[in-house]
Amino acid sequence: MVNLRIPGPTPVPVEVAQAGAAPMINHRGPEFAAMAARTTEGVKKVYQTTNDVVTLSASGTGAMEAAVVNLMAPGEEVLVVSIGEFGDRFMNLVKIYGGKLTELKFDPGLAADVNKIEDALKKNPAIKTVFITHNETSTGVTNPILPDLAKVVHARDGGVLIVDAISSLSSVPVKTDEWDLDVVLSGSQKGWMTAPGLAFVSMNERAWAKAAANPQPRFYFDLKRHLDSLKSGQTPWTPAVSVWFQLDKSLELMLAEGLDQIFARHHRLASKVRNGAKAMGLKLLASEGVESDTVTAIRVPEGLNGDEIIKTAIKEYDTVFAGGQGGLKGKIIRFGHLGYVTDSDIDAGLDALKGSLAKVGFKA
Amino acid sequence: MVNLRIPGPTPVPVEVAQAGAAPMINHRGPEFAAMAARTTEGVKKVYQTTNDVVTLSASGTGAMEAAVVNLMAPGEEVLVVSIGEFGDRFMNLVKIYGGKLTELKFDPGLAADVNKIEDALKKNPAIKTVFITHNETSTGVTNPILPDLAKVVHARDGGVLIVDAISSLSSVPVKTDEWDLDVVLSGSQKGWMTAPGLAFVSMNERAWAKAAANPQPRFYFDLKRHLDSLKSGQTPWTPAVSVWFQLDKSLELMLAEGLDQIFARHHRLASKVRNGAKAMGLKLLASEGVESDTVTAIRVPEGLNGDEIIKTAIKEYDTVFAGGQGGLKGKIIRFGHLGYVTDSDIDAGLDALKGSLAKVGFKA
Repeated sequence: MVNLRIPGPTPVPVEVAQAGAAPMINHRGPEFAAMAARTTEGVKKVYQTTNDVVTLSASGTGAMEAAVVNLMAPGEEVLVVSIGEFGDRFMNLVKIYGGKLTELKFDPGLAADVNKIEDALKKNPAIKTVFITHNETSTGVTNPILPDLAKVVHARDGGVLIVDAISSLSSVPVKTDEWDLDVVLSGSQKGWMTAPGLAFVSMNERAWAKAAANPQPRFYFDLKRHLDSLKSGQTPWTPAVSVWFQLDKSLELMLAEGLDQIFARHHRLASKVRNGAKAMGLKLLASEGVESDTVTAIRVPEGLNGDEIIKTAIKEYDTVFAGGQGGLKGKIIRFGHLGYVTDSDIDAGLDALKGSLAKVGFKA
Repeated sequence: MVNLRIPGPTPVPVEVAQAGAAPMINHRGPEFAAMAARTTEGVKKVYQTTNDVVTLSASGTGAMEAAVVNLMAPGEEVLVVSIGEFGDRFMNLVKIYGGKLTELKFDPGLAADVNKIEDALKKNPAIKTVFITHNETSTGVTNPILPDLAKVVHARDGGVLIVDAISSLSSVPVKTDEWDLDVVLSGSQKGWMTAPGLAFVSMNERAWAKAAANPQPRFYFDLKRHLDSLKSGQTPWTPAVSVWFQLDKSLELMLAEGLDQIFARHHRLASKVRNGAKAMGLKLLASEGVESDTVTAIRVPEGLNGDEIIKTAIKEYDTVFAGGQGGLKGKIIRFGHLGYVTDSDIDAGLDALKGSLAKVGFKA
């Protein structure tokens, strides 16, 4: 069996995978309605929220687009805070959908600085809407500032904070209500131990009010349509039923394990990866203290070829790591440790990394 | 086992359902690239086209939105031909995305009349883009005019014809190239015998040229991004991998059965449904000669309650029919006969219909 050590899609437990093979049902019938009610309650528990949460049949990028088209009007001034590729994706979406973008970028490996965000906001009082990535999958950094940032954003009249928590929520604590996060995104193929195909969006009253007043055109990703349908146990468009079957089972497993236990397991296994990599003489991309508990970005040692290391791990160790994206292509190896992951997966992953490095000539 | 006799999602063969439970893979790796190349070739065969076809992780409605945002500019004059709910959905999309809509509606049960379409086009020479539903799932009617309509549309400079073939293509002949259809949509949960979650869009050179010049904002559904990614065996955003595994297997089954055999089977079973319903003294909604081979809409006899018939069929016969949508709510029963369907499913469905009607007091 391949050891899939990328930061998503993540391995799916056999019982979850099998749940997806159940006989097809009517998406407008009572079984689907019961399942949608059950999974929505389960997802809310993981989100630590009483806000509405809708489930879209789309990837995490679909949820990002949904956030932009529901919350940002054409011509609106917005701030996007980026610490990597997925923050940059928000910038791209904002530009495409006609937002007036203020960019605040931090170098790869750094977390966002809430003081710098506050300064940027002070310079432009017109900005109400702020986008940020919680866990940057491309650099292995988790932004620790969400509770503080929410206060800063809400200090302005009409301020709304939109958080991409796609690769963090369900693996590390995201306290949607306690931190007062207006819009929070996640995706089934990350810590949720489910195949890709579903994405989640939570919305509080502030967010619904802003969306209701927003003239930006939307249809497939119109969150109000999703909420209205959900009230009668449906989705506005045909949902990805088999992935939904999987989610239903995975939530059962997750809630049985318990959120605190899940978070503790992720932190323990992430620490093991970080310590293991350092013990090999490797350096991490993430600054100390902001390393992600779902994915570790390891710097490719000087003089070595990242692609070659990844190819060797697949060929010799049946272990799949991810490479760098954009400007980090060839410069980092990303080791995923989220979702359905155990000590033995991590130990085998570290062995594969060590062995592959040795085969391409690395000497610590 | 429930007899799922709705016009989608349709039953999934056990081996297809099981294929979706295979271990998760890297969506940026060689296995996915090989699968995407294989399924794209298979889908093209079913589409009877050499045009590009992209696979979106979305429902059929997502493909409809993709067609609108890629092919229609804001402010553009377009014609939507509607013979039911799904034609009306195109109208809705066109209005939302800022098109100047000319509506041409035909009463439920009727097919579109190509002469009336030609007249409507003559009245407005600014219209280049025409949307039409091939098979209207809400009324059980198949428009037989596509080859003629394509000639009419292409007679105008820059004319582009967009066809929703979501519930027909893969069950009945849609000759994309021979009929010269510019954009054709379909969805995995119909004749493709696969769970919902994937949708297909074929585009010819005319369509790509129009899309390239179209300033309408788009990202998740930007077809050019999908095409560019597909060239390197990927999708721009994380695909619904488990549904894709199913598609890979279902295409194997479909191509082994053969397109002509699939079409003949659908026609034979549809005829059996129509003849069976008529033999019970029931009337069809569709006009004679344009009845769909994928779904039959049966008029609820005067004085009876359509919802009660459907509830009885579920409770007493484990058979799930669909009701009417919009203005047809309560007035029709829709009997699906597409995808993975055999004589015994149809015989059991007809028995369930007959028995349920008797129980609610129907006398022919």
